[in-house]
Amino acid sequence: MKALVHEEKTGTKGLSYREIAELEPNAGEVRVKLKTAGLNHRDIYTLQRHKPTDPPLIIGSDGAGVIDAVGDGVSDIQVGDEVLINPGLGWKEKSDAPPQGFEILGLPFHGTFAEHVVIPAENVVQKPQYLTWEEAGVLSLAALTAYRALFTRGQVQSGMKVLIPGIGSGVATFLLQFAKASGATVYVTSRSEEKCRKAVELGADKAIDSNGDWHEALGGEKMDLVIESVGAATFNKSLDQLRLGGTMVTFGASAGDVVQLNIRNFFYGQFNLLGSTMGSTEEHREMVQFIEKHQIRPIMDHMYPLSQFEQAFERMEKAAQLGKIGFHIR
Amino acid sequence: MKALVHEEKTGTKGLSYREIAELEPNAGEVRVKLKTAGLNHRDIYTLQRHKPTDPPLIIGSDGAGVIDAVGDGVSDIQVGDEVLINPGLGWKEKSDAPPQGFEILGLPFHGTFAEHVVIPAENVVQKPQYLTWEEAGVLSLAALTAYRALFTRGQVQSGMKVLIPGIGSGVATFLLQFAKASGATVYVTSRSEEKCRKAVELGADKAIDSNGDWHEALGGEKMDLVIESVGAATFNKSLDQLRLGGTMVTFGASAGDVVQLNIRNFFYGQFNLLGSTMGSTEEHREMVQFIEKHQIRPIMDHMYPLSQFEQAFERMEKAAQLGKIGFHIR
Repeated sequence: MKALVHEEKTGTKGLSYREIAELEPNAGEVRVKLKTAGLNHRDIYTLQRHKPTDPPLIIGSDGAGVIDAVGDGVSDIQVGDEVLINPGLGWKEKSDAPPQGFEILGLPFHGTFAEHVVIPAENVVQKPQYLTWEEAGVLSLAALTAYRALFTRGQVQSGMKVLIPGIGSGVATFLLQFAKASGATVYVTSRSEEKCRKAVELGADKAIDSNGDWHEALGGEKMDLVIESVGAATFNKSLDQLRLGGTMVTFGASAGDVVQLNIRNFFYGQFNLLGSTMGSTEEHREMVQFIEKHQIRPIMDHMYPLSQFEQAFERMEKAAQLGKIGFHIR
Repeated sequence: MKALVHEEKTGTKGLSYREIAELEPNAGEVRVKLKTAGLNHRDIYTLQRHKPTDPPLIIGSDGAGVIDAVGDGVSDIQVGDEVLINPGLGWKEKSDAPPQGFEILGLPFHGTFAEHVVIPAENVVQKPQYLTWEEAGVLSLAALTAYRALFTRGQVQSGMKVLIPGIGSGVATFLLQFAKASGATVYVTSRSEEKCRKAVELGADKAIDSNGDWHEALGGEKMDLVIESVGAATFNKSLDQLRLGGTMVTFGASAGDVVQLNIRNFFYGQFNLLGSTMGSTEEHREMVQFIEKHQIRPIMDHMYPLSQFEQAFERMEKAAQLGKIGFHIR
């Protein structure tokens, strides 16, 4: 089969779209013939973390397609089922943190940027009928991350004021949709006027310039909840927007890992800073129920054929997208 | 009456033990003839925050004594009642954060380092009979801070592993006692061998050198809960001891306000960082019930006559104490 394979060199230079051996499902596993796949920031990190000396790896975490082989002992899934993939391996129930051995599809195990992927049967979910193949293929990683950050960790409630700095990413657009569907008032920031404009179209109550004075732009409104995934570039500006006793959930640091934190301001503010990443199978199931109930569709940025992976990675590295970037497979 | 008054100069240089006019209780207030008072780090900050151009101020937050005058409309407290003082003004029920207008006795309002103090009737509590006057006078601020940090914020449970860096302070010794009474396994740190030894006598399961390698000293044990009040000197060492999904409560920064925080490590760890400070009247009531139930007594470091305030402040500024420093009044 054809697949996007990483080998020999760190970064995108190590990627090639080439033939690689087909895999067969073992007991408890299924094989999915993929129709679409979704690109995530994680895939960029994978190209740094997967070593040139490691065996060749098919990257990619998100995807959707049709079951075309079923391993022994799998009873509730049949060949022909239309499914989307939950890429979290080995984290079943909602908990403080993933258990030992938790992995995400695409490193160290072969991922979804291929004609087929073999995964545990518990990692496929029936595709909601109202979603297109494109929407189903880009959903899981970002929507699950957003779901855990906003609901399990942030405990969003109707009427809360929620700030989402950096509205471009796939996760951020899900956060906006999920928070609005929950009845929150939602503020977003972006460096791009175009993204601010689109965010308001998508339901944001206010969209402000990331580079400006946030206090002024928000008219002094303080936030119950900030969901921060930009990192160092906005971390302290985000924290400054919290009301006393407010909560900031952090799950990303694409714009820098290390920040200066003033502890005294933090404890006088009685703030809560909560780290989050991915989510469990239980949260994935809840997330799919939530989007079906509210008929939420991923915001689609652009779909590429898998052979044009270079353009897709470049678009994400420049943070040019609003919403999800995905691949058509064959 | 005689009182410890701050005026004209910043810091301890502005302190004098001198005559100042007596106060009378207004409606809803009571006057307490103080027998003892307790010294807190807050009193040191007050000497920095109370400006030389402000009117003279009687400092001090903690105290215990006998009611000797009652304002109009006060029905449940009588002259002769033996009471201790809750220094939190205007924060009634347990909540995310204190309401607008919350203050702590001793700035901007006259405090307890005096023969008498006038306060709202809701701020006195009947002295538990098993406590000495010395113990009752040093209790409130530190024990309330410890109570909110450990229970309301940290949600300590029996069987948890709890780390308390910097075991010297009054709050830290309450944390140790409260956590042990709750059935937790408690680890403490100190730079002083003597304090480590005493902490083990007081019930700590293990006491380690603050300057050493904590991972090694703790044998790789990870903590469910860290209650961090030292500040910059230990903040990141403390965070490193958390188990995945663990919680660190922070309420102090005597050893530095600003730290470098690695956001990526924080969110991959799914950590919780919770700011805390003081507590409400409701939490003060719960705290007094808790110490009565468990017959907990404050760890007493040293009592001074109020006229020897300079020695008391010096001892706290050098962090030489283990437990509470207090004053006998007359």
